Amino acid sequence: MLLLNLDESSRTPPYQQIFLQMKDKIELQVLRPGDKLPSTRKLAEQLGVHRSTVASAYQELWAQGYIEQRHGCRPVVRERMQMATAKDREQEGWVRWQAVTSAASVSLWEQCREMKPAVAGETGGEVIDFSSLDMDGRLFPVDHFRVCLDRALKTEGTALLGYGDRAGYMPLREYIAGHLRSHGITITAEEILITNGLQQGIDLVFRMLAAPGQAVAIESPTYNKITPLLRFCGLKPLEVPVRHDGMDLTMLEEVLRREKPVLVYTMPNSQNPTGISTSQTHREQLLSLCETYRVPILEDGFEEEMKYFGKAALPIKSMDKHHLVIYAGTFSKVLFPGVRIGWIAAERECIDRLLSIRYFSDTSSSMILQAGIYKFCQSGHYARHINKMRRVFRSRMQTAIKAFDEYIAPDWAEWIQPSGGYLIWMKLKSPAPVRRDEWESLMLRKGVCAAWGTLFFAGDTGENHIRLSISKLNEQEIETGICRLGDVLWEVWNNKT
Amino acid sequence: MLLLNLDESSRTPPYQQIFLQMKDKIELQVLRPGDKLPSTRKLAEQLGVHRSTVASAYQELWAQGYIEQRHGCRPVVRERMQMATAKDREQEGWVRWQAVTSAASVSLWEQCREMKPAVAGETGGEVIDFSSLDMDGRLFPVDHFRVCLDRALKTEGTALLGYGDRAGYMPLREYIAGHLRSHGITITAEEILITNGLQQGIDLVFRMLAAPGQAVAIESPTYNKITPLLRFCGLKPLEVPVRHDGMDLTMLEEVLRREKPVLVYTMPNSQNPTGISTSQTHREQLLSLCETYRVPILEDGFEEEMKYFGKAALPIKSMDKHHLVIYAGTFSKVLFPGVRIGWIAAERECIDRLLSIRYFSDTSSSMILQAGIYKFCQSGHYARHINKMRRVFRSRMQTAIKAFDEYIAPDWAEWIQPSGGYLIWMKLKSPAPVRRDEWESLMLRKGVCAAWGTLFFAGDTGENHIRLSISKLNEQEIETGICRLGDVLWEVWNNKT
Repeated sequence: MLLLNLDESSRTPPYQQIFLQMKDKIELQVLRPGDKLPSTRKLAEQLGVHRSTVASAYQELWAQGYIEQRHGCRPVVRERMQMATAKDREQEGWVRWQAVTSAASVSLWEQCREMKPAVAGETGGEVIDFSSLDMDGRLFPVDHFRVCLDRALKTEGTALLGYGDRAGYMPLREYIAGHLRSHGITITAEEILITNGLQQGIDLVFRMLAAPGQAVAIESPTYNKITPLLRFCGLKPLEVPVRHDGMDLTMLEEVLRREKPVLVYTMPNSQNPTGISTSQTHREQLLSLCETYRVPILEDGFEEEMKYFGKAALPIKSMDKHHLVIYAGTFSKVLFPGVRIGWIAAERECIDRLLSIRYFSDTSSSMILQAGIYKFCQSGHYARHINKMRRVFRSRMQTAIKAFDEYIAPDWAEWIQPSGGYLIWMKLKSPAPVRRDEWESLMLRKGVCAAWGTLFFAGDTGENHIRLSISKLNEQEIETGICRLGDVLWEVWNNKT
Repeated sequence: MLLLNLDESSRTPPYQQIFLQMKDKIELQVLRPGDKLPSTRKLAEQLGVHRSTVASAYQELWAQGYIEQRHGCRPVVRERMQMATAKDREQEGWVRWQAVTSAASVSLWEQCREMKPAVAGETGGEVIDFSSLDMDGRLFPVDHFRVCLDRALKTEGTALLGYGDRAGYMPLREYIAGHLRSHGITITAEEILITNGLQQGIDLVFRMLAAPGQAVAIESPTYNKITPLLRFCGLKPLEVPVRHDGMDLTMLEEVLRREKPVLVYTMPNSQNPTGISTSQTHREQLLSLCETYRVPILEDGFEEEMKYFGKAALPIKSMDKHHLVIYAGTFSKVLFPGVRIGWIAAERECIDRLLSIRYFSDTSSSMILQAGIYKFCQSGHYARHINKMRRVFRSRMQTAIKAFDEYIAPDWAEWIQPSGGYLIWMKLKSPAPVRRDEWESLMLRKGVCAAWGTLFFAGDTGENHIRLSISKLNEQEIETGICRLGDVLWEVWNNKT
């Protein structure tokens, strides 16, 4: 006879107690595969419970694969693959991911690990971080946004909880189209696709074009996620050097003629990492070149709003009569990145093709956040916030420039003075080559860090360059940080390392 | 002399008036390239304004590329690429997207257009739509969610507006890990990656594995976004037929042995489109097979919660001791799709590799929505909502089954009775082959529509099958819709078409 004990004072319901005790007996092989269990009637009598209680316990045992039940027969313990409990899950699995995953994804994975910042933990004091392009959370208009989001959900309710329009929330697309008009870009809402941040826009464009043997012309140096992503997509990066006024156009023409890239990727404002903004003339010439060779341009407008010194040039897209330019924008670099909302503006047919890739890769962006951002923009908060950010960062950048003059001798380094944005690109005029790891540990010892130049080149160049980002630092932090950087350079030049 | 008129009563500021009038003159070629403009002093005198007003207008003209300015010289009108206004943007651009985009993306685009539902517009009355797996918005817990979202933003504020943890909001990952435990899956939060819905999880896994010549074993029929996405990623789909109890395991073994796929993709609960849920035994055998061949499984658990008839089987992942199973889940199919939050649970190294692809493709998911959903789950709303959905859809499915018995003669069609979910797969026993377009227009005339079977096969099979989804219909709509479907079948069988 099967011995079970029901504890009437327990908070575990009787059927559950029966289930658990039976389960134990099966797992401990007291009951073995093929053994018959008592009928529900019999066990119910024995335990003094209702038959349905026993039936529930048997149902649970069946559901979890412990027993077989056939109508009219007593249940039988079955051969059973064991559940994987924490204990018996193996430390190392049977799949060798390094072998199973594609070469391209192995390489992406390795690069991703390299890109993890070398910050913190290693130093006692607070490290001032010039390495990251993350935004300064102290400036986020969190309360305004929260209220707008709440209001959007209150007004539209259920309509925001479905998949919604695949191309994005229509009022937001209309707002963006209107906003782009203020940058000289004539476009309709139908020519706009909402994406999960600007990064997804880039990925979609690369995926649309990727085919064996195809190449993309890029700036060198460039944004550090570009080359790995191109290669992952199976596209070859063709590096065109950046001069003081932007991409070298003679070289670009050479590349266009000889290598026939399917795309030119460019960042005309506050280029990452050099901080260079190109002139109106440069933009016109670049567009003319691409028109001649009928090659589309991906214009990365990630910092369209952050032009705060001197005179702003208009986007390349504003001159694009022949629909060559795919313009990618974002709310991340002036508002906050957490909404993950960017957009692509391009010829309708191009948008349609990108949309199909989007639909298969992750369906669509959340309507909830899009409606929240729309409310935020429509209430005038966005325009006000842009003005605030321009004011704040003009002042912060002035502080940075002043600190450079004060703490960094012209013999040690030279840098490009930006006309906006958050980035300063610096060339170290080292007496001897500096190795990245030495440099980084020296910086960390002094309580400062920055992004190492090689990250931004497809090849092995870029040593003796660093990129400084002031995006998340206030004026005091900037000044202290640059002072510490001066200390580092002083030590290097005086062989104190 | 340059004639300009300033309107002092206008709300347009004087500098803007000067700018606009100059711009017009340049565009109308009254002022031609090379012409000199008056000095700021002279024009200011002439117009009776301050010099800085004229300087501002000139600055704007410069910024928009109309004039050249050199220090100490009068500004000169420049050769200028015209802005692309709405008028002079060409109807057809110069890029032939069909030629520039890859063959794979052309094909995806074409399939995406085909997938657009054939609904509405064509009929006078309201069409009852069985074709879509969209959810019934009437059941969305919109107010509870709104309050949770607002509370999350109030509590955490700024912390939610940055990029946050690349793998996802930690409390939510912990909640999901705990919730998976209730399905027998032992897993830690570190083994979970948050994705933009389940679809992104699938895309990431395919991208991780895609390499020339690689293949993936899939069910046939299967979810209609699988085959196009596999092909887009460059992976070959290997179709394994679905029998009444799930994937044909003898065929699967054959495929594993001969074709060495890099992955088996399976949907053990309420399989899309057949609605079949496999037994515990079938799941064990499938896992054993894949263990033998050391092939990872992608288990699509999109309807893990919606088992409402009979006894539920546990996920394959619950028996996975050797980390072969990549489990993908979502909030979309029981809560609402608009949050775009899904997850992947897999061996840590696999998660890490998927994360790197994720980081380059769209960085991360919004922390705001993740925190909102977490609050919603943690407050018990999610568990309550699951119970409600089970109750509602058990009843709706019963209505559907009753209506089938009532309105559809066994001679006309046969269908598989589901044990949960929203789907019913129906085979039309037509006396003559039915063409999709004829069938769809006949359905629409009767005010009903469903998904055509061929959508779910990689090859050309699947005619004479339709998939009915009750996910967004209430009981009355279901009954009326099936009654109309009965009318359609009656006409087909009595040659009234």
